[in-house]
Amino acid sequence: MNICLIGAGNLATHLGRALHEAGHCICQVYSRTSASAEILAPKLNSQPICQLSALRNDADIYIVALKDDVLHQILPQLCRHRSTQLFVHTAGSIPMDVFRQFTQTYGVIYPLQTFSKQRAVSFRHIPCLIEGNSKTVCNVLNTLCRSISDDVREVSSADRKYIHLAAVFGCNFTNLCYTLAAEILKRRKLPFELLLPLIDETAAKLHTMTPAAAQTGPAVRFDEHVMNRQLELLGNDDCLKDIYKMLSRQIHCLSTRP
Amino acid sequence: MNICLIGAGNLATHLGRALHEAGHCICQVYSRTSASAEILAPKLNSQPICQLSALRNDADIYIVALKDDVLHQILPQLCRHRSTQLFVHTAGSIPMDVFRQFTQTYGVIYPLQTFSKQRAVSFRHIPCLIEGNSKTVCNVLNTLCRSISDDVREVSSADRKYIHLAAVFGCNFTNLCYTLAAEILKRRKLPFELLLPLIDETAAKLHTMTPAAAQTGPAVRFDEHVMNRQLELLGNDDCLKDIYKMLSRQIHCLSTRP
Repeated sequence: MNICLIGAGNLATHLGRALHEAGHCICQVYSRTSASAEILAPKLNSQPICQLSALRNDADIYIVALKDDVLHQILPQLCRHRSTQLFVHTAGSIPMDVFRQFTQTYGVIYPLQTFSKQRAVSFRHIPCLIEGNSKTVCNVLNTLCRSISDDVREVSSADRKYIHLAAVFGCNFTNLCYTLAAEILKRRKLPFELLLPLIDETAAKLHTMTPAAAQTGPAVRFDEHVMNRQLELLGNDDCLKDIYKMLSRQIHCLSTRP
Repeated sequence: MNICLIGAGNLATHLGRALHEAGHCICQVYSRTSASAEILAPKLNSQPICQLSALRNDADIYIVALKDDVLHQILPQLCRHRSTQLFVHTAGSIPMDVFRQFTQTYGVIYPLQTFSKQRAVSFRHIPCLIEGNSKTVCNVLNTLCRSISDDVREVSSADRKYIHLAAVFGCNFTNLCYTLAAEILKRRKLPFELLLPLIDETAAKLHTMTPAAAQTGPAVRFDEHVMNRQLELLGNDDCLKDIYKMLSRQIHCLSTRP
């Protein structure tokens, strides 16, 4: 397919690369600041643009991968004179119908993954959650996504926003916990890599157990001695203490729930 | 070595199994309730006991893997008439010197991992943090632990408690985040396995990036629209809302820190 990529951030970079490697043509890469598009476009054998006036009107699909509030701002101009073309966005928490007043055929491709530009990922095992405003659009998106992933699923806007919320807990908040662990070790000049086998196993357990069954540590044992001593170790860091208390309380609540 | 294992919980089960497989003799397994010892002992070709009066006096090492407050209670009786034997505990947050008034040779073996009885783990890559009250004890523990792990390190009590604290963040709190994600999906009848590639990648990133650099999501972008809509999705669940707000704020704080 001939694809225009609107955005050049983490997600656009990885999705663009996967589509390019699957043999699709990424005709243009748009970013508001020309720098991002100019870094990404050459990797995709594509043309960088930073003005929407330079955007082609004849692409088979326009994939919009922008920060949510920017997406809302840009839509009217983006869809003008292209209201018969296919548009999709890639945002977990934005309903598909955001396109409705601007174009006739539209949908969503939401790859459920955490993307950082500097880290390569294989798209093959990434769930691609798709939605289309017609059966035809769903079929097109299904074919497109199957060219990059083995796990393509139709998911409604209503479900997708809850999946996005769960992803914030399972990925973003999890990564914050890693960051806080790293901070604690750094203050003592201890190496973070010590924790890697533990972190790997904590994630790996979920392939064979529920997270509730996998819970270990002082909070689930309600070992108050340990918890109080650990709070003391956090010293004057009230933010970390509040987080420690709140998360420990929640672990204990869940473990005693009937 | 001839080993008496005091405790039959998650850690005792896995450490006992690794030592047994490395060719050591686990002479006895003690647990307060006979049930746990009777399940574990046969797997280790060992004798289950539930009375300390039945504990042998001639083992080369007594490995105490008990809940922290139970350890404190049991020590006087455990060490009586065995004050020349080698004792170690396995707790992250208890100083080595807890043994000082009861025995002459003592130390710590702290395997930095999350253990659940029903899940097999390979000890080879688990960091075993050891400490001894003499060079001789350190050497004995080093030799013993090298028979089960490739990563044996001497770590002081002062450092070990911070490593344990970091492990609570990196493992226990992380697993809570998984549990809350699972809860959100379950309420919508959506399958948890959807999140597994995301969870795996979030952990895997740490092998090539710092967690601070790996952070993604609405909080680090400070995408208030998304955060407010996600809070709405949590409805009346004030606990989850408080956790969402506190962790998002912390992500934002850390990302804007100079």
